[in-house]
Amino acid sequence: MSEQLGGAKLAQVALVVRDIEEASRRWADLLGVPVPNVITTAPGLEVEQTYNGAPSDARAKLAFFQLGPVQLELIEPMGGESTWQEVLDRKGEGFHHIAFWVEGMQRSVDYLREHGIPMVQRGDMGEGQYAYFDAEGRLGVTLELLEGKRETRATP
Amino acid sequence: MSEQLGGAKLAQVALVVRDIEEASRRWADLLGVPVPNVITTAPGLEVEQTYNGAPSDARAKLAFFQLGPVQLELIEPMGGESTWQEVLDRKGEGFHHIAFWVEGMQRSVDYLREHGIPMVQRGDMGEGQYAYFDAEGRLGVTLELLEGKRETRATP
Repeated sequence: MSEQLGGAKLAQVALVVRDIEEASRRWADLLGVPVPNVITTAPGLEVEQTYNGAPSDARAKLAFFQLGPVQLELIEPMGGESTWQEVLDRKGEGFHHIAFWVEGMQRSVDYLREHGIPMVQRGDMGEGQYAYFDAEGRLGVTLELLEGKRETRATP
Repeated sequence: MSEQLGGAKLAQVALVVRDIEEASRRWADLLGVPVPNVITTAPGLEVEQTYNGAPSDARAKLAFFQLGPVQLELIEPMGGESTWQEVLDRKGEGFHHIAFWVEGMQRSVDYLREHGIPMVQRGDMGEGQYAYFDAEGRLGVTLELLEGKRETRATP
């Protein structure tokens, strides 16, 4: 693992949706698999969530389809300030991000910032953490990085 | 393989870009891998390409990053009528589609059509074929299906 995402593994392709129960049913039908459980993220303030540098209590409903080693994730924002809500409001339903597993989150945050890709949201995720990056200007997409075991909480 | 995409394997996540050389360099930097070769699709009329039911000679430049079993594909439309150009014109740079490998393309085409997801573009791809589907209304995304060895050319 270099400062780049060298060796990073594609983890997820994620979509924002307005009605996760309906979207889950449609994808399950299409893929010929059971409808997944819908989970709700912890209240943001309980997981040290920040959005644009400020604490965010925003939550979302999530559902996952395991497509081999990669997950198709559905995200229904539940209001509050978040990248989930921002993308849904601005673009409507559709792609939200692609996610990679990394080790050494802060090094990746620093590398991306130096390359014009700022961290816009982060939160704890069990013993690990997630962080979103606005790469729309540089790459046309939002990125997410996932770390299984955090050393420090990522800072922009 | 049922009429659905049951067992379908996630093959690609694809983005449309305006300058594939620049985009390839940026992604290669980010991922810490070599800049991939850029290839140009065959003239559409040589591969029985259709778009919205009519013959289309549109072409695109393509570049691929192999992320484990899934490809990140970059697509620069080269003009002409295609889903590549349509999405770029309407949404700008960013996500274009997710692709799945299937067997029995026409069964999938029929299944999707019956579920409100029409085929909008297809073409030969070596001994196989590709087809794009407008699932924006149903799923918020464009889908692509890839078949390694075609029995018949897919029809809408």
